[in-house]
Amino acid sequence: MDVGAFNDFLLTTEESLQVQVHRYLVGKISNGQLPPGTRLPASRRLAMDFKLSRNTVSIAIEQLKAEGFLRAEPGNGVFVNKDLPKNLVALAKENWHWSLESNGRRLPKLSYFGQQLDAQPAGDNRLNLPFTPGLPDLKAFPDRIWQKNQRQHQDRKLLQGYDGSQGYLPLRIALAEYLNISRGVRCEPEQIIITQGAQQAISLCALVLLNEGDSVFVESPGYRNAAKAFLARKAKLLPAAVDTKGLVVDDLPDKTTAKIIYTTPTHQYPLGGILPAAERIKLLDWAASRNIWIIEDDYDSEFHFHGKTIPAMQGMADQTPVLYIGSFSKTLFPALRLGFMVVPQQLAATFVLAKEYTGGESSLLAQAVTADFIVEGHFGRHLRKMRHLYEQKWDHLRSLLTLHLSGLATPIASSAGMHLVLNIAIEDDQILQQYFMAQGFGSTALSSYITAGNIPDETGKRKNKMSGLVLGFANTSEDERLKGVLILKEFLQSALKR
Amino acid sequence: MDVGAFNDFLLTTEESLQVQVHRYLVGKISNGQLPPGTRLPASRRLAMDFKLSRNTVSIAIEQLKAEGFLRAEPGNGVFVNKDLPKNLVALAKENWHWSLESNGRRLPKLSYFGQQLDAQPAGDNRLNLPFTPGLPDLKAFPDRIWQKNQRQHQDRKLLQGYDGSQGYLPLRIALAEYLNISRGVRCEPEQIIITQGAQQAISLCALVLLNEGDSVFVESPGYRNAAKAFLARKAKLLPAAVDTKGLVVDDLPDKTTAKIIYTTPTHQYPLGGILPAAERIKLLDWAASRNIWIIEDDYDSEFHFHGKTIPAMQGMADQTPVLYIGSFSKTLFPALRLGFMVVPQQLAATFVLAKEYTGGESSLLAQAVTADFIVEGHFGRHLRKMRHLYEQKWDHLRSLLTLHLSGLATPIASSAGMHLVLNIAIEDDQILQQYFMAQGFGSTALSSYITAGNIPDETGKRKNKMSGLVLGFANTSEDERLKGVLILKEFLQSALKR
Repeated sequence: MDVGAFNDFLLTTEESLQVQVHRYLVGKISNGQLPPGTRLPASRRLAMDFKLSRNTVSIAIEQLKAEGFLRAEPGNGVFVNKDLPKNLVALAKENWHWSLESNGRRLPKLSYFGQQLDAQPAGDNRLNLPFTPGLPDLKAFPDRIWQKNQRQHQDRKLLQGYDGSQGYLPLRIALAEYLNISRGVRCEPEQIIITQGAQQAISLCALVLLNEGDSVFVESPGYRNAAKAFLARKAKLLPAAVDTKGLVVDDLPDKTTAKIIYTTPTHQYPLGGILPAAERIKLLDWAASRNIWIIEDDYDSEFHFHGKTIPAMQGMADQTPVLYIGSFSKTLFPALRLGFMVVPQQLAATFVLAKEYTGGESSLLAQAVTADFIVEGHFGRHLRKMRHLYEQKWDHLRSLLTLHLSGLATPIASSAGMHLVLNIAIEDDQILQQYFMAQGFGSTALSSYITAGNIPDETGKRKNKMSGLVLGFANTSEDERLKGVLILKEFLQSALKR
Repeated sequence: MDVGAFNDFLLTTEESLQVQVHRYLVGKISNGQLPPGTRLPASRRLAMDFKLSRNTVSIAIEQLKAEGFLRAEPGNGVFVNKDLPKNLVALAKENWHWSLESNGRRLPKLSYFGQQLDAQPAGDNRLNLPFTPGLPDLKAFPDRIWQKNQRQHQDRKLLQGYDGSQGYLPLRIALAEYLNISRGVRCEPEQIIITQGAQQAISLCALVLLNEGDSVFVESPGYRNAAKAFLARKAKLLPAAVDTKGLVVDDLPDKTTAKIIYTTPTHQYPLGGILPAAERIKLLDWAASRNIWIIEDDYDSEFHFHGKTIPAMQGMADQTPVLYIGSFSKTLFPALRLGFMVVPQQLAATFVLAKEYTGGESSLLAQAVTADFIVEGHFGRHLRKMRHLYEQKWDHLRSLLTLHLSGLATPIASSAGMHLVLNIAIEDDQILQQYFMAQGFGSTALSSYITAGNIPDETGKRKNKMSGLVLGFANTSEDERLKGVLILKEFLQSALKR
């Protein structure tokens, strides 16, 4: 044991010695070398044996008395407690070990959801590899400006204390204005709740809107982690079909007991379709007349350079049954861990409490720096710059695909922004993903995005058995794009020969 | 509308004008002034009317075509779409308003938990007032060192991308060593999960360990927000009695279907009792033999200067059924929003997934700075300094209470650390809290800490109808302590006269 290490932590060297004496004696009592009723040698004697000061030993003994291991008989000395609880003695005999194996003692059960997670393979590592979907181009981030803002805020004492679970007011004010102008969202700062990324926002919706066993429509293919958040409420997932224009509203059933429909209308994830305005109104009407909440995940709206962006559903009418969700993970950077949601005015307090009880406040420094970044115009400038940059990368990738993968893979035209979806007629796209990963590229198999069972293709209308790759090109260099495409070419050509 | 503001956001001035034209035309179509089938004036004509460039108007019209509001008939002009969906027309007639009042349309229902939250008064503002429980003395925080660490990390590109929901490995390594040495916790970094404060850790336990309707023992009086996190699983809360030595283990029933017992053994919240080692082992045995999880919230262990701290239950044996929870909100500062939990090895992956689906990663910068702060020894030094400082403040407050409030209020001796509990025989301590708040002091009424119904006092053994105040003295100055005590004196003396 490295006594020096104690100094780095809570204890002074003197205290660390006391702890060692304490542990030594507990060990002796536990393993029966000092059975109940034994008289302890005098502390002076022990101190000599230990080569320690008498004070050090005395303090350890006092602690053992306070804990009930030892008992003083005045004028007679200190004894190992005769009335040590039986279970302490039993445990002591087992040398303080409750072994899962040795005595059949097992850990208590998990919940239904816990067991589901337990059965699932561990999550991916979110490696920051080229072509990993969802990674922005961090090299183009204006670090200097961000760090200057951060330095200005970091010595503000007010940013160390408690602020409130709803989020930092200046950030909510800046966001309300930004969302109104750029996305047509109708909201006051009081309706905005700052979250730990979009994922917490979706999870809060599940908590506040779903009872256990309720049904939820999710786009399929769609955003898998949204589906997982609903499963935490034991939700029944109903697949909603998507095509190149996003969610197929006409396919939604006339009668349903579903409580929520989760959708990414501005840039369907992952296929990229933009839901037309008329379809948005149809969807609003479908949901409102059936008392169904719409979760509008405005994923990637900022980078949609392929066709004009349509305003958010949330703002298409007053009092829409819409929870609007966004994130700074892609527009700024993932590790910032800030997202936000806009909820109907009368539900704001309810959502704030739900956030308070499941995670509490969000990092104040991150919120303050982000607020300034927006208000000072850096956010808008950064988004414009990134849109152009991503469009150039997209153009380059598309030309590479045309040049090298014609006849082997087909890009889905609507997929723009930060990733491109490549349709590949291959039996098992997971193998392709693994092969690509082994070469250092982090794309995801398209089949992984099926969230809620396959759409039956008997009708022939929309075959949904998709295979291919989702290529996040935002974080790739020119060289990486070329190298990646050539690797795919080689793999697919040799797969064809077989 | 302030056109200039557009520049600060996503759009260039030119784009903002396009948006205004777009909105104007949607408005006309919506309110019926441009009914379906109407031919739109030529864009040249419109541009003259608007006093804008033709290009601006053309782009807005193209957008309306893409959205389905307008339709071009080649060689004939542009028309308002005759096939506008009926519901769009209907909505248009209502001037795009779904009014809750006007047509009886209501928002969909909330979940059971959502309705509970909805019925609850909004959460307190966590004002950073003197005597607000849970607030550390931020003035004594070593800002310079913290900020230096922060500057060293903030330009690391790696700290902007994705890292993983379990938490930053160097922080988990530092924590494992610290927790082992200072708290006797047995764990590897693989068992640690970094969370958004202790609250997220409790909430994850509820998610992974509780099915809906399961029972949970909570200390009463105890930590209210833990109880709330269990209620999100529709849990049945069972009160566990506490006395000046913490949880009364002997009072726990022999037979129970409870799945969890939530406890604060190192410093019972709020009364301050320290659970003796023998009682801890009894509790471990009680829980393990009944297949019950123990959530050990090691609240305030670092600042417990009143009697030696007893090692954590988690480490008293191998494979204890214990989820150990801690937080940096009090040892560093609340707005950092970092906490942690130690789970049994075989459950680590499950808890990481649960975190991924409900909130995802934690702020990387905050984690990296905290890791350095621990490893470089600043954490240990800061804790030692704060323990002395808080002890001085506690001594001062106690002497003031003896001097001014004898016979009016009784401090609970065990309550130390960062707050002191004052027993006051008063009918309604909420009124006292409100009065004190009106004078600028943020203490909390003791009766607020009853988490799960009152303990029946027929036995006379432990009357649990408590009234008084919880005074967070950590963030008070000498003057504030004196002023606060004198205000209490005045109030209580005049209350006595009545």
